[in-house]
Amino acid sequence: MSDFVQSLERGLAVIRAFDADHPEMTLSDVARVTGLTRAAARRFLLTLVDLGYMRTDGRLFTLRPKVLELGYSYLSSLGLPDVAQPHLEKLAAEVHESCSVSVLDGSDIVYVARVPTKRIMNVMIEIGTRFPAHATSMGRVMLAAQENLDDFLATTPLTALTDRTITDPVELKSELSRVRAQGWSMVDGELEHGLRSIAAPIRNKGKVIAAVNISTHVSRPIESVHDDLVPPLLATAEAISADLNLS
Amino acid sequence: MSDFVQSLERGLAVIRAFDADHPEMTLSDVARVTGLTRAAARRFLLTLVDLGYMRTDGRLFTLRPKVLELGYSYLSSLGLPDVAQPHLEKLAAEVHESCSVSVLDGSDIVYVARVPTKRIMNVMIEIGTRFPAHATSMGRVMLAAQENLDDFLATTPLTALTDRTITDPVELKSELSRVRAQGWSMVDGELEHGLRSIAAPIRNKGKVIAAVNISTHVSRPIESVHDDLVPPLLATAEAISADLNLS
Repeated sequence: MSDFVQSLERGLAVIRAFDADHPEMTLSDVARVTGLTRAAARRFLLTLVDLGYMRTDGRLFTLRPKVLELGYSYLSSLGLPDVAQPHLEKLAAEVHESCSVSVLDGSDIVYVARVPTKRIMNVMIEIGTRFPAHATSMGRVMLAAQENLDDFLATTPLTALTDRTITDPVELKSELSRVRAQGWSMVDGELEHGLRSIAAPIRNKGKVIAAVNISTHVSRPIESVHDDLVPPLLATAEAISADLNLS
Repeated sequence: MSDFVQSLERGLAVIRAFDADHPEMTLSDVARVTGLTRAAARRFLLTLVDLGYMRTDGRLFTLRPKVLELGYSYLSSLGLPDVAQPHLEKLAAEVHESCSVSVLDGSDIVYVARVPTKRIMNVMIEIGTRFPAHATSMGRVMLAAQENLDDFLATTPLTALTDRTITDPVELKSELSRVRAQGWSMVDGELEHGLRSIAAPIRNKGKVIAAVNISTHVSRPIESVHDDLVPPLLATAEAISADLNLS
């Protein structure tokens, strides 16, 4: 008996087949998108209806909000968002810029908490959004704390997101050393032109487990970033870390 | 052959077994919490590891952020959050109170977008949070538009959340008529003492599909709610509805 449960993979694929371009689908649509037979697609869809994850009018199927609870199993298991959110809201109110917390997952950062203030350059970053770690300030502070950094650099393609993105492993390693010594990082136009972001590490029992950032626009002078944003950022990272160690 | 895929139900139960109290579990823990045999729990856990939804150090299992993508299949399929979020941010910045958008799911409202400003009374409302529709301002504007309202009232227990909650179906029906005529609703301490909330319907092609609210504290005088909050709330509901009809 194989250890792999194909029915689980297929059922999750049926959930993921729905998105902004496919908000409602017929049985035939789902079969086509997932590559399942009509009979199999029908069994998965009816099971999801039965479990409350999907609804149907008999012809069209749509997801129900219960699907959100799956994602929140992860956020809740992390513990971090509940602890971080009030600190993040205080920081955003103080600096009038959007603030976020992310974790590292492979070579990506994934947003787990966010307080937007005004929208910067129409960038809309939601919880669950991923960005390549090497091109982000939060990724840099988390990579700087990695024990197996050489493995990461040897195996991860350092894609250029803009013409400013560091794509040379040697150069990135040297920047990460600087970040480690300094205790925070700045990324300037490497993820997106005009977007400037600073980040600091969140520690649980001394170990870096996440990062908090402030993202801003190039129109704010670098001096203002150093003088007005870095101190509250570091204070927030410390406060979240202190709360984590209490809980 | 049954139409119900038990493996899918069990796999989803394994994901949901993880939460703030159980952020990491051994195989035996998962078997105990889900009621599965150790052999079955092992197959589901290894499948989830294989699919990238879980990680393990060989002994302890934890969820990975990919689980968030399942919840975002729902949010994305809804289309609503992307359209509503900028309007919600503008409204929150204007009235300096927390603002949300929710949809109706059975007898509950479920939050699908939210912009917090300051934290009111330590209430922390995240996307995916559910409240009984009858005791909330957003629920009231959505119930007021239901065609099968009598069925709802006949089958839904109107639980008292505080001593102010309307629990009499006849009284609720009369309040919903008033809400329908007025075009917005106010709920005052019925969900939680001291919490006052107003809501207006979001329409897609004339049909009420969601609601937007502003939640505030009893310390704000009723006159201020009427004069300062209702007009921007109604303008925001109109603006979101207009954008939905464009998209």
